[in-house]
Formats: sequence, structure tokens, C-alpha cells
Amino acid sequence: MLPRGRPRALGAAALLLLLLLVGFFRLGGDPESRGAAGGGGAGGLDPALTPHVPPDGRPRGTAGLDGDPPGDHNRSGCHPPRPRPPKCELLHVAIVCAGHNSSRDVITLVKSLLFYRRNPLHLHLVTDSVARNILETLFQTWMVPAVHISFYDAEELKPQVSWIPNKHYSGLYGLMKLALPGVLPPHLARVIVLDTDVTFASDIAELWALFAHFSGVILLQLDRLRQAGWEKTWRQIATRELRTLLATSLADQDVFNAVIKEHPGLVWPLPCVWNVQLSDHSQAEHCYLEASDLKVIHWNSPKKLRVKNKHVAFFRSLHLTFLEYDGNLLRRELFGCSSPLPPRAEQLQLALAQLDEEDACFQFRQQQLTVHRVHLTFLPHELPAPQPHDVTLVAQLSMDRLQMLEALCRHWPGPMSLALYLTDAEAQQFLRFVAASAVLSARRDVAYHVVYRDGPLYPVNQLRNVALAQALTPYVFLSDIDFLPAYSLYDYLRTSIEQLELGSRRKAALVVPAFETLHYRFGFPSSKAELLALLDSGSLHTFRYHEWPRGHAPTDYARWREARAPYLVQWAADYEPYVVVPRDCPHYDPRFMGFGWNKVAHIVELDAQQYELLVLPEAFIVHLPHTPSLDISRFRSSPAYRDCLQALKDEFHQDLSRRYGAAALKYLTALQQPRGLA
Amino acid sequence: MLPRGRPRALGAAALLLLLLLVGFFRLGGDPESRGAAGGGGAGGLDPALTPHVPPDGRPRGTAGLDGDPPGDHNRSGCHPPRPRPPKCELLHVAIVCAGHNSSRDVITLVKSLLFYRRNPLHLHLVTDSVARNILETLFQTWMVPAVHISFYDAEELKPQVSWIPNKHYSGLYGLMKLALPGVLPPHLARVIVLDTDVTFASDIAELWALFAHFSGVILLQLDRLRQAGWEKTWRQIATRELRTLLATSLADQDVFNAVIKEHPGLVWPLPCVWNVQLSDHSQAEHCYLEASDLKVIHWNSPKKLRVKNKHVAFFRSLHLTFLEYDGNLLRRELFGCSSPLPPRAEQLQLALAQLDEEDACFQFRQQQLTVHRVHLTFLPHELPAPQPHDVTLVAQLSMDRLQMLEALCRHWPGPMSLALYLTDAEAQQFLRFVAASAVLSARRDVAYHVVYRDGPLYPVNQLRNVALAQALTPYVFLSDIDFLPAYSLYDYLRTSIEQLELGSRRKAALVVPAFETLHYRFGFPSSKAELLALLDSGSLHTFRYHEWPRGHAPTDYARWREARAPYLVQWAADYEPYVVVPRDCPHYDPRFMGFGWNKVAHIVELDAQQYELLVLPEAFIVHLPHTPSLDISRFRSSPAYRDCLQALKDEFHQDLSRRYGAAALKYLTALQQPRGLA
Repeated sequence: MLPRGRPRALGAAALLLLLLLVGFFRLGGDPESRGAAGGGGAGGLDPALTPHVPPDGRPRGTAGLDGDPPGDHNRSGCHPPRPRPPKCELLHVAIVCAGHNSSRDVITLVKSLLFYRRNPLHLHLVTDSVARNILETLFQTWMVPAVHISFYDAEELKPQVSWIPNKHYSGLYGLMKLALPGVLPPHLARVIVLDTDVTFASDIAELWALFAHFSGVILLQLDRLRQAGWEKTWRQIATRELRTLLATSLADQDVFNAVIKEHPGLVWPLPCVWNVQLSDHSQAEHCYLEASDLKVIHWNSPKKLRVKNKHVAFFRSLHLTFLEYDGNLLRRELFGCSSPLPPRAEQLQLALAQLDEEDACFQFRQQQLTVHRVHLTFLPHELPAPQPHDVTLVAQLSMDRLQMLEALCRHWPGPMSLALYLTDAEAQQFLRFVAASAVLSARRDVAYHVVYRDGPLYPVNQLRNVALAQALTPYVFLSDIDFLPAYSLYDYLRTSIEQLELGSRRKAALVVPAFETLHYRFGFPSSKAELLALLDSGSLHTFRYHEWPRGHAPTDYARWREARAPYLVQWAADYEPYVVVPRDCPHYDPRFMGFGWNKVAHIVELDAQQYELLVLPEAFIVHLPHTPSLDISRFRSSPAYRDCLQALKDEFHQDLSRRYGAAALKYLTALQQPRGLA
Repeated sequence: MLPRGRPRALGAAALLLLLLLVGFFRLGGDPESRGAAGGGGAGGLDPALTPHVPPDGRPRGTAGLDGDPPGDHNRSGCHPPRPRPPKCELLHVAIVCAGHNSSRDVITLVKSLLFYRRNPLHLHLVTDSVARNILETLFQTWMVPAVHISFYDAEELKPQVSWIPNKHYSGLYGLMKLALPGVLPPHLARVIVLDTDVTFASDIAELWALFAHFSGVILLQLDRLRQAGWEKTWRQIATRELRTLLATSLADQDVFNAVIKEHPGLVWPLPCVWNVQLSDHSQAEHCYLEASDLKVIHWNSPKKLRVKNKHVAFFRSLHLTFLEYDGNLLRRELFGCSSPLPPRAEQLQLALAQLDEEDACFQFRQQQLTVHRVHLTFLPHELPAPQPHDVTLVAQLSMDRLQMLEALCRHWPGPMSLALYLTDAEAQQFLRFVAASAVLSARRDVAYHVVYRDGPLYPVNQLRNVALAQALTPYVFLSDIDFLPAYSLYDYLRTSIEQLELGSRRKAALVVPAFETLHYRFGFPSSKAELLALLDSGSLHTFRYHEWPRGHAPTDYARWREARAPYLVQWAADYEPYVVVPRDCPHYDPRFMGFGWNKVAHIVELDAQQYELLVLPEAFIVHLPHTPSLDISRFRSSPAYRDCLQALKDEFHQDLSRRYGAAALKYLTALQQPRGLA
């Protein structure tokens, strides 16, 4: 009898089930390992089968501790202790994942899986819409060779389990594991089911190889399970549990336990090294002290990472290893397995191979072809309520501008879509930074999209495009992270958009005039009048007044001083104002990297598409001083960088002529007058 | 015949030797695997032994590809394919390492070794004085459980190999492998010898286990090798090679090859997976395409990481994995092996266990007990020529201040000792940053000491102490990274020290007055007159004039304006000037973390030890504005942080009274007047 009401004590036994259930249901075959009871047709679950899992969930004998399952002595005594599946065999893994936080957790699991694996993998992901949006983009941009991904809609599975009351932290999504055999493809014979809070410390192929202990029959298990009426069986047992035991809730493990109780022969115990749990159980400790080898660490709940345990350092280090592991390093191909490359990867490799290393722009072109791994909505994010004139602030940053976020949140109370260019380790620092900030933790309307670092140049326009694509309001304010908006800007922009009837009447870009302070300490102006006073006193300047006035000259600051209504301005060469545009505006040109011409090209594109440029009389942003970023100082002084930028500009203008014909002539003409670096 | 003159083609065979030589010399035993020739007493090297290594260096048959050595069929056919040594058996590894760059490379090897190992290790390191200084500090501060370190002086080995002309990049130090059997302890029976440019992809215990294929005899191999006159044999053969073949140089591999040529039975080939080389050889590729498992990657030369190879991504990712791996995560204990803890580790664990988590200073005390891994002289560094009045600039920084380094180098042409607080990944970024900077690359008198990040607080005084301890001139200028010195300061300080007869006559701290600019763009004053003009125009201020004038008030800026000669000033509460002192000055108090009172306490200590405070009339430094660091913004606003700082100050004053008695009363009195946070 498996006692109820001790779900934690049953943890070890229950996770064995999570790992093995779908694949290891024994509906026939291998009489030796099933003991003397024998029999058991393929047509039904046989309650008479001898149990192979003792009530404490531990395998019998220490032989099982190191990968050698007990009871499997039907072959010659000479099989290798660590069998491996054939080289290049495709292994199937199923995971249920929902929400922003689980989508982060599952990445750590996947990294540990990929680090040790040497086989092609097929991941079957049962997700809600949030996790699907995140994981689909992630895997598309991760481009790991020999990894196939299939998604299954958790919404469709919900009705199958939502009738079961439960209060486990993973809720309904945990219960969905019960329904997996029904949702996975009919041709799929074997699958390993994993929780998201599991970290691998070894090659999953060793786990997969345990299937072999069941001889050929196992190859049809999923099929037989379906035919055998698994769907009906677990429902019947769960229903009875709820009724007869007056249970107020059931987690998936409770249901699994109840099924085992009635059909103990269904389960085959995994050696404990495949489910080492972080706890004070002497049972778990017994396992890892005797084993020379831990294969899977199971965290069981989000809080366990802080558990006090003699050996917590080992568990913690394994977890942190993969938490902070550079996922780009997992893009390696498998040796000797001819797996097809991920979509796009082949073209990209071809394009990369064709680049000329002597080209001054080699680094630019190489990085333009780099697909950056993207983790959308890295933190919980709520969709903004649809409002016809709402504006999302769009910007991008790296670690050295994190300090701007709090001030930005105070100045802009509306939605934001921010692309962060980080390493995997920095992404964890970012999480801690947000957790430590009351201001940032309180916001659910700021979407943080992590773009993982790769390559020497700062891909500014690729980052802007990620943030822009994820803005969910009809309008976007295309800003930069070093600017603080006027406190009133968010409200003022929405009012202006409405009054100017931007959506229906005109195709316009609203210009937000930009200023700068060279002072480290600075009292932010609370009105246009205050701003003008600071300008007159020399505490503020128009943006880049000293080094590059052309960038904002067309805004006509003199006119702006007096303006009471929006006014039209004309495009001129090198103009790069900060603008508010509809979300469906042109994207930024990704060929411009680092720090030159990245905004200029975008404004040219707007002008070429006949956006009016309308300056708003009460709008302003102020640029704060900062130490120059490493990226700037590294490249700005390089002559090769300037040469390349010129080449890229030329190519950009050629593309413009191709797309806009004679209308683009003015941009070329403007370019004929030689000028310095933007 | 092994052809000479093709050392690259012989690479695979030769590294097998590097890995196996010392342990695997077969001076008897196991007649089965030695073939029909048999015999071969323990008293000498037997040239008649049948070779087990074919001329191409590859093992016979593909069975050897995956860990199963060929020729070892003397047991039952039933041994496991991957034998493991007994749990907790101590494994011995020997490495020759010299100079700054090899000392960095070897860390990557050691990290990969530690990541996969499950046995206690004893590392036998043959080092020059540079590598010893670096590695001794590193391992002492790394405190990895179950790792023993022994050092052997390469200087003593030099005469044994320096007579051999050679031009291999690793030079003399490579040849030292020939002399290893003589230098390792007599009781040591088996050892695995590794090059520094090797990365493990598996547990070294699997390699160690291959010793078992030689049955009991192998346990005495090193002893027998010594008795057998190995020292004489290799010298004779090398001498003859040089004479008869008119060779102009020999690398260690050439000598090994020549020895094998005469005594082919001496070597037992490792399966190729234990020496996978990055090259375009079809031979190497053949190995990794057929094997399911690569165990050791061998880079062979510092340049190979950039080699073009179909599978370069795999090799690169394994290397980068450990290059950037957080070494702190390797401090984990082994399960079930009762290895003694590293020195200090036990006390520290006890002290940590006794901390009160409810204490407001818990984080401070915890971090004070943290031993940070330290990598001294991370980049090549030349000792300054001894000069009696020379001054080293001492400072500390983290990643977000890297931009200061170039300007600092321009302003301070003398020696510097800088502590950098970095993650392992950031240390690699730092290397790239220096490599990209002509200014930084040109300097050999700047010592960079990497202190690896660990814990939430910035250990400012621990960092200062590392940098201070490594300053090698008689005097130090204790500065901060955000300050730029007057261009003349280095010369002026040396002249002042000489004129003031600081060494012999007086115990003094020379005060360098500090100023600041709040402007982002700033023309640095080239003289005191220019500085005063900027001060008068409001472009410059005395340091922290607006927020904390007490910190520098005793410097008496009004007097400084007019001063033509050094003048004495008196200590006052909260005084924290930047000073020049003898190198043997008191250390900084490591209890002060983050951003409060860290310098103040040091000046108190100087005053308590009766250092005179002498202000220099022509010396000045200027603080540049910067975005506040994450560390400041995270903690400065926290009330708990302020409470803790007060508690730490109290404890500091209690310690002062204990050490200086009544003389310390004035510091306590000064503290009675409540003031804000320093």
C-alpha cells in the first residue's frame, strides 16, 4: 500500500513515474523481469503483475545505484553496465511548460540536456500561448543542430484534466502529464517525460538506453497504452480517489500514485541516480553518497535552490552551471550524424562562407548574418489593454545601462518594449537587479526581451527591431535608453495622436525634440518653460549641439521655442530625430552596427515612404551623460570602421534607388556632399 | 621507422606519449599484450619488445576508438568497456607550466578536469617562479576540496635539458617532460602527464582506469623506470640524434619519437578519443567521426583555436565552455569521499555557520569570510627596475570602469598594480579589451590582478589589499580608478619622496589633493595654474564639495592654492585623502564592503600609527563623472545598509582601542558626534 497524504515522501517514486511512465508501461513482454506472475496480455492493464517498485520507491540492492537496473538478469551476465542507444538514434523528450517563469526554467533544463547529449533530440513541448511565443522564437533563433521541436497546445488538453481539483504549485499543467499519451503523435513509441525543474548531469542517452531492458515489446508501448485504455483507467481511478477518500485536491503525482497502487506492475523503477532530489531525506542522501555518478537533479519546487543541505553546493553548482551557460556554445553539430541543419542555418552558413575576409566590412557583414538567440518577455508581462492611441516606448540596452531603467520607469508610466543585449550570465544578473528594485518589480507593462550576445559589434538595429516587433500598442515611441522623457510625455503623446487623427488621416512621424545635459548631477525640468530656462542658462543644450548639430537641425529648435502647435519639417541629410510612429512602420536596417548611421537610415526610410515629419511643441526628452560604452571606444577611432561605414551607406543608397526609383535620388544627391561620420 | 622532420604528422602518436609516458612504460608484466617477444626484465629497457604502436600512431582496429584499448584480450571477454578506478582513489596528474600566458591556459585545462572528475586529484606542477607565484595564490584562494597541489622548481630541471637545442614554441619547458620521472616523488607509482593546451571532455578517471590494463606490474612502473636508467637512455638517444642526423634543434616530441623508434615496445597506444587534435588531418577527423565520445581535445599550439575545420565549432565550444566557466562552481565537495578540506576552508565553514542570519550585517560578514579566487598578473608583467623612490599607483575596478584604463595609462607613465573584480567570462572580455588597445598592449609595467566575483557586495578593501600586496616599488600611491592624475604627478612624487627623505627620516603619508569635474566633456589641466583657473570658473570643484566636504576638508584647499612647499595637516573625523605611503603601510580593513567608510578607516589606521599627513603643493588628481555603478545604486538607499555600516564602525573603533589603547580615544570621541553616511 502506498500511503496517501505524504506526497513529499513519495517524491522519489513519483518522479520515476514522470520520467518513465509513458515509455515504461509494461503491457506484455519480458516475463523474466516481471517475475513469476507472468502473463498479462497486451489488451489491458494487468493488476496481477508483480510490483517492481518497493513502497519506499527505492530499487532493490545497491547494484541499481549506478545505472544498472535491478531484476534485469534475463540476458547473458555480460551486458555493459552503461548501455548506449545506437549512434545517431533520435531520442524523444516531452515537457509541459506554461508561463513566463517556467519558460525560463525549461531553458536551464534544455541547456544541461544539450551539453551532455550526443544524439539527435526531438522535443515535444506542451505549452500555453505565452510559453509558445517565447520558446518558438527562442528555438528558431537558437538554431541548435540536430534538435527538432514540436509544439502541442495546452489549451486543448485543459478540459481533460480541469475537472480534477488541485492545489500543487504547477497546477493544471502538472496534471497534463496524465493526458500525454493521447496528445503525442500516434507513431511515437517511446518518450522520456521531464519536469521543467530538472537538471541533467549526464547524457540522456543513458536514460534512453534503459528502454532496451524491456526488449522489443517496448517499441510499441505508446500504441498499446492507447489501445489499452490508459485514458479511461487514470480517470476512473482519480474519480474514485476523489470520491472515496474525500480528497479536496489531487496533483498529478497523487493520481500516478493511486494508479500504481492498483497496478503496481505498471512501473519499473529507475536507479535513484536518475532522480536525485534536493532534500533532507536520508533516502536521497543515501543515493548520492553511494553512487559515484549523479545523472539527474530534480529540484521539485522553485524554492528548493535555497534549501540547506550538506551537499547543496554540488546541486547549486550544477544548476548555476547551466543557468549561466552560454547557450551559443550548444550550437555545435553532432559528429558523424547527418542531421538536417535547422531552417535558415544552411543558407546562413553558405552566405558566411562566401564573405570576403579582406573586405573592410567583413566584421559588419559577418555579424549581420549572425542570428542572435532571442528570449522574448524574459520576465512576467501583461498585455496592455487595447487602446486606440496608446504608445509603447521602444529602446535597447546592454548591461552598462541597467541603471537607467528605474529613472525611465519613473518618467514613462506607459508600456515599454526593451531589447537587452546580454550574455546568459548577465541575464541572471539582470533578474537579480529587477528583483532588488521595488520600482521595476512593480511594473508588468514593461516587456524585457533578451537578445544574447554574439560577435564583436553591438547590433543596435537588430535589437531595435526585436523591441519594435514586440510592441503591442498601435503606436511606438522610438527612443534610446540614455534619454529621459518629460514626465508628461506619455499622456501628451496619446492626446496628440488622438487630436492629430494620426491613425486614419495622415501618415506621420511625430518628432520629439531632444536635448542633453553635460552635467552629471541634474534637476530634470518639469515643464517646457523650465527646460527653456535651463537651455538659456547653459545647463542644457540641444542634443549633440557641440559635435553634430546636423543630426537634429531640421527640428528647428528656434521655431520649437515659440511653437504652440505641431509644425511640419522637411527631411535633410543626416537628420536623426526621435519619433513616434505607428507600430507597422519600416524596420531598422540591420546592416548598420555599432555606432554610426543606424537611426539616420531609418529616418530616410520613413521619408522615402512619405511619412510627414511633425514636431510636437510640448514634447521633449533629455539625454543624460554617461561614460562611453566599450563598444563606442573600441570602434569609433578605427579608420577601417569609417571606411566600412561609407561602403555600407553606399550600398544602402543603391538599395533605396532600387526600391524607390527616382524618388530616392535626393538621398544620393545629399550624400554627394562629403561630411564626417554621423 | 618513424620518420623525423614531420613532427606535426606525428602529433597524435607523440601526445599519446605525453599522456602515458611516465605511467605506461612497460618494463615487464602482461606478456599477452606484449606479444610473442615476451621477457624484458625490470632492470632495463628492452629494445626487442614488440611494438604496439603502428608507425602512424593509430591504434589497430576501430574497437579502440571508444575507450577499449586494442590488444587487451587477456581477461575474460566480459570486462566493462569503461572501467573506473575505485571510488575515492587519488589520481595523480603532472603538468609543466611556465610564464604568464601558460598560467592562464592551464586554468582552462584544470577547470575541465575538475568539472568532470569524481575522484580526489593530486596535481604535480613543475613551474618557473612566475607561474608558481600565480598558481600558488590561485589554488590557495580557489580552495577546491579534494585537490592537492605540489610544486616543483623548473629552475632545477633546466640544466638537465638545456643542452638540447630546440625551437619549439614551448621551448625548454616542453623538454622538461623528459626529466619528470626524476623529479616526481620516489613513492609515486603512476601519473598522467598533460600539456597545458588540453581540454577534457570526460572524466579523467576513465583515462586513469586504462592503467588497469597492465595488471599489478604497472603499480611499480615509476620506480622501475628510475631504476632502469631512463635518465640515461633518453640522453644517449637525444645526443646521438643531434650528432648523427645533424639536427639543429629537438623538441621533446622529437626525443620521445627517437626513443620509441629504438624501443617501440615501450609505448602502449591510447585510443584516439583521448587525444583528439584540431587539424585537417583525415586521421583526426576519422577518429571523431567514428567515436561517439571525445574525451580529450588537444590544441597543440596557441594559434589553433582559429583553425578552419568543419568541426571547429565543437572544439571551440568545449574550450570556451571552460575558459568562461565560473571556477567558483568547482568548489563542490566529492560525494562519499572523506577528503580533507583545503587549508582555512574548515575554519571558514565553521565561522560561516556561526553567523547570525538576522544580523543586519549578515551579508557583510558573510562576504568578509568569502575567500575570493585570485589570479595574480593575469597578463605578462615585467618587474620594475629597483629604484629607491619609485611609486606604484594602486587601484581597483570592475568591468564598468575598463574605459578608464587608457586615460590612466596616459596620465601615469609609472608602474601600476590594479585589482580587477571580474567573472571568469569578464576576464576573457578584459583580455580582448587589452589586446584591442595599442596603449594598454604597449605597457608591461601595469600588473592586472583578477579577483573573481563572488557575493553581492563589492569587496572594495579586499581588492585594494590584493593590489597593494602586489606593488613592488618602495612607495605606493593609493588612488581610485575614477581619478586621473596630473600628467606630472609620477615624476613629481618621486622627486618629492627623495627631497623629503621619506624613507629614512620620517613616517609620512603624502596627501594628493583631489578635485572633481561634473562635466562629461573636460579638458584636463596641464598645470596647477590651469587647475586653479578651472576651479575659479566653476568647471572644477574640490572633491565631493557638494555632498561631503568633510571627506577632504583637512587638506585645506585654501592653503594649498598658495602653498609652495609641503605642509602638515592634522587628522580629523571622516578625513579620506588620497595618499602616497611606503609599501609596508597598514592594509585596508576588509570588513568595510561596498561604498562606505572604506578609505576613512584606513586613514584612521595611518594616523593611529603616527604617520604624518603632508600635503604636496603641486600634486593633484581629478575625479571624472560616471554613471553610478550598480553596486552603489543597489545599496546606498537601503536603511539596513546604513545600520550595518554604523555597527561595523563601532566594531572598528573597539578594535582600535584594543590595539592602540588610550591613543585611540580621539577616534571614539570624534565618532560621538553623529553625522551622515560617509
